[in-house]
Amino acid sequence: MTDAPGFTGSPLDRIDIERDQPALFAERLADPRARLLVLDGLDPVVDEDGRLLWTDMAQAGDAEVALLGLIDAIPRFVALRGGANRNHHAIFRLLDSLPAGEAGTYATARSLVDWHARHRFCANCGTATVPMRAGWARRCPGCDAEHYPRTDPVVIMLAEHDGPAGRRILIGRQPRFPAGNYSALAGFLEVGESLEEAVTRELMEEAGVRATAVRYVASQPWPFPSQLMVACIARVESDALTIDTNELEDAMWVTRDELAAALAKEPDARFKVPPPYAIAHTLFVRWLAGA
Amino acid sequence: MTDAPGFTGSPLDRIDIERDQPALFAERLADPRARLLVLDGLDPVVDEDGRLLWTDMAQAGDAEVALLGLIDAIPRFVALRGGANRNHHAIFRLLDSLPAGEAGTYATARSLVDWHARHRFCANCGTATVPMRAGWARRCPGCDAEHYPRTDPVVIMLAEHDGPAGRRILIGRQPRFPAGNYSALAGFLEVGESLEEAVTRELMEEAGVRATAVRYVASQPWPFPSQLMVACIARVESDALTIDTNELEDAMWVTRDELAAALAKEPDARFKVPPPYAIAHTLFVRWLAGA
Repeated sequence: MTDAPGFTGSPLDRIDIERDQPALFAERLADPRARLLVLDGLDPVVDEDGRLLWTDMAQAGDAEVALLGLIDAIPRFVALRGGANRNHHAIFRLLDSLPAGEAGTYATARSLVDWHARHRFCANCGTATVPMRAGWARRCPGCDAEHYPRTDPVVIMLAEHDGPAGRRILIGRQPRFPAGNYSALAGFLEVGESLEEAVTRELMEEAGVRATAVRYVASQPWPFPSQLMVACIARVESDALTIDTNELEDAMWVTRDELAAALAKEPDARFKVPPPYAIAHTLFVRWLAGA
Repeated sequence: MTDAPGFTGSPLDRIDIERDQPALFAERLADPRARLLVLDGLDPVVDEDGRLLWTDMAQAGDAEVALLGLIDAIPRFVALRGGANRNHHAIFRLLDSLPAGEAGTYATARSLVDWHARHRFCANCGTATVPMRAGWARRCPGCDAEHYPRTDPVVIMLAEHDGPAGRRILIGRQPRFPAGNYSALAGFLEVGESLEEAVTRELMEEAGVRATAVRYVASQPWPFPSQLMVACIARVESDALTIDTNELEDAMWVTRDELAAALAKEPDARFKVPPPYAIAHTLFVRWLAGA
């Protein structure tokens, strides 16, 4: 059982340093080896070996393209098509079988394409904007503002409590989860907060537990559409719960043995866990390993 | 010497749960105890005790207001004025003297006001948007898109190397730094990256050093305009540097003793460090303490 967070490990060399130089971008674009990532709407398409499918640049047609970077020293592009279908989610069927790193390359492309599609106008003045910096930003011809892809930090955390039943962690389920599934609690970080403050606030809001210490565990990109997931563990002094039923359908304290049974998918496990590409899974595995 | 990151520790209770309920917002607004944060453009204004200044709600005039939350059970608002002056930076003169937590409340207000001022139009369709959710989002009457304040994750890190000269860390200076000042290297996290991957990429890009392990140290909000600073330490196997002179004017390896002298502001210290409210300072202090 790997504990590397999902969507990490892409072999992409982003060559950011070239983005400011349109001449280099044109050179990469003219490279006969250049490849274009195949997407179905925003979903990935894989070849017979289960790897991301790439095609020749002509398939971009009239669409603008972004330079993702280099893989195996070959320039890799993605077409910035507007109105891409965001509802397929074939990705979720593919993710368990995508080779390590492929999901990370896809995550980068998906978040970038989706950001362009939903940010075609200047938030500052309303004018239609145009891509710049090799597809890694947009510029407003109206007010000269530059806009960059956004990444929204989300904290995802386990409360940890030592009591008569031993050491336990808090897990919860949202109504939209598959039947029997539980995960770590989570929420968006807000302006003016540190990660530790966001963890503390979310645990209080959703479950009524007061964090006394927060420790970082791991992070991952989550391209639906563009989150940075930051996984933490928070010590709490009391295990009394006050559940926010707007957010959670249920929350419960579970032991190491109960978690191990769930991760092993034992038939009599008390609950089911998210798939390995979700950082909640990483968090569970690392907590069991002593994180 | 404190090691709590700057801009953390605000006493603000954000009462997020109320934001979806306009009737509760109206109730808070009508509370005769409600207070409005005084800003000079985007800069803070302090009273004779050096604390943030609050005034009565009438001072908002015709401006829309956002509900920051509660402090001492009293509703706290800020006016969402467009075109606020972003060039004062009186904050930097005040920050060393603001009581703990006051800077965090200010950071929240500043980032929120500035976000509204620069996001008055829908990025999806160009229509003028209106505040919603007690001032914590904007809604587009044209396409119904909802827009939320953005926070941009930035990684800030020390490379750490063990060699004949003992354990040393890598620091650098940008041309815009005050004379003699050095700090940790830093850069924006991009879509499709974990924090650890962003640290690894930035160290390679800016200094040509290859990270073999990355550990998290601390985080802080940075309201200029709205970053989440994530401080890390990265092990490297080689101390050979290839400096990106577009980003850095200089970079150098320093020992524990050299860093301690700089933090103590000794007259013969090899370099100067950023002020305590910058997380680079926290990172230096924690590395010396064994982080």
